[in-house]
Amino acid sequence: MSDKNTLIFFDIPSKIGAWSPNTWKTRYSLNHKGIPYKTIWVEYPDIEKTLKDYSIAAYTTQPDGRTPLYTLPAIYDPVTSTGLTESFVIAKYLDEKYPDKPILVPKGTEVLQKAHINATRAKIEPIWQFMLPKTNWNLNERSEAYFRRTREEMEGQTMEEMYPKGEKRKEEWKKLEEGLGQVDKWYGKEDVLVMGGEGNNACFADFAFAGYAIWIRILFGKESEEWKNVSGWQDGRWGKMIQALEKYE
Amino acid sequence: MSDKNTLIFFDIPSKIGAWSPNTWKTRYSLNHKGIPYKTIWVEYPDIEKTLKDYSIAAYTTQPDGRTPLYTLPAIYDPVTSTGLTESFVIAKYLDEKYPDKPILVPKGTEVLQKAHINATRAKIEPIWQFMLPKTNWNLNERSEAYFRRTREEMEGQTMEEMYPKGEKRKEEWKKLEEGLGQVDKWYGKEDVLVMGGEGNNACFADFAFAGYAIWIRILFGKESEEWKNVSGWQDGRWGKMIQALEKYE
Repeated sequence: MSDKNTLIFFDIPSKIGAWSPNTWKTRYSLNHKGIPYKTIWVEYPDIEKTLKDYSIAAYTTQPDGRTPLYTLPAIYDPVTSTGLTESFVIAKYLDEKYPDKPILVPKGTEVLQKAHINATRAKIEPIWQFMLPKTNWNLNERSEAYFRRTREEMEGQTMEEMYPKGEKRKEEWKKLEEGLGQVDKWYGKEDVLVMGGEGNNACFADFAFAGYAIWIRILFGKESEEWKNVSGWQDGRWGKMIQALEKYE
Repeated sequence: MSDKNTLIFFDIPSKIGAWSPNTWKTRYSLNHKGIPYKTIWVEYPDIEKTLKDYSIAAYTTQPDGRTPLYTLPAIYDPVTSTGLTESFVIAKYLDEKYPDKPILVPKGTEVLQKAHINATRAKIEPIWQFMLPKTNWNLNERSEAYFRRTREEMEGQTMEEMYPKGEKRKEEWKKLEEGLGQVDKWYGKEDVLVMGGEGNNACFADFAFAGYAIWIRILFGKESEEWKNVSGWQDGRWGKMIQALEKYE
């Protein structure tokens, strides 16, 4: 399948495979569109060099507002010699280059989808304290050191301090449930996906949300109490959604 | 124009005419669809009785979670003997009953529009401290007393205390600008409306946003410093938007 014209998808490895909520958005996008690709696995300390090697510009900057911040997901399309990073930008590129494949951002929905992604992220804020440490503990050694250093600097506490325990854990987990309860209210009883319908009607906003859900499922495990909680909350809405999108994993 | 079959739209009066961000959502919706209606003006203390007279159920409850809370906008459609309150519910009813008129909630966009409305409201949080007092001071006497009592109870401060002054005013106004700056980021440079295009492509989420903007324009006045600010922020995005929707006022 893979030849010199195959699209390249850059993802971050871990001890348990693909895990990142952000790169999952692009992995889902590519699978949904049915575009063949090969994955290049890049450990955190190598992201900047790898993207530079492919002349892929950074999408954003460090907190200083100037120094480029190199992030994944990224893709490199050898057919058009185009390299891009940031999952929404990538989705729009894929729609433009492959208009006959399922469309991720239907005409007229870009502003709406961005608002949905932004609103959802705000509602599930309690997720980070669980998932950043959980991520850290599952990365390969070189990424782990990098991730720990940068995140602990950002958060001003160690991963172990951040991870909620005991009563705090229950409260914060409850807050996550409540946040998802607010997102749930936007959906009609029968809606499985953001734009209605089943898996083949998925749009980018579904994958943006699914990235968070699958992050929990993968890092805690399918049989974990945590995933059973999340997939069962709100009458099983999120469990059904992830199941509807399973064919694009 | 008006006969016994004309749709009735219930709005809240003031010393300076229609002003409410919520009822404006429905006024815009009706005008956009080109549905003839007559306005019944209802002072705050009369909303509950008026809606009950038309057998229009409350959409939500008081903070106790049980006692019905009667709110405007509401409509009563004599043709179908249907009375409804809450602007999104009304928009969906209008789309269903008048499918040949411009559609407010195109198929597949309901979840997205609700997310947009929710996300926008969160970003413009600083607006309330300016607009609640400003509203209060412009209501007719009976509404003023009711509004002041209920809002001051809710907020734990008088309208006069709430209204930001001096340095605080500058800071809070700046926060509003920054919040709108975040909303602005979802839009492409050329987008005037949420789903792209000009006024005839408007959707309900545009009117939900426009309700807030016009609230500022009406209460401060078209020539005020405040409206000049808001309509000029983000390269005049909101000014252009309100202008594109002017034909539906």
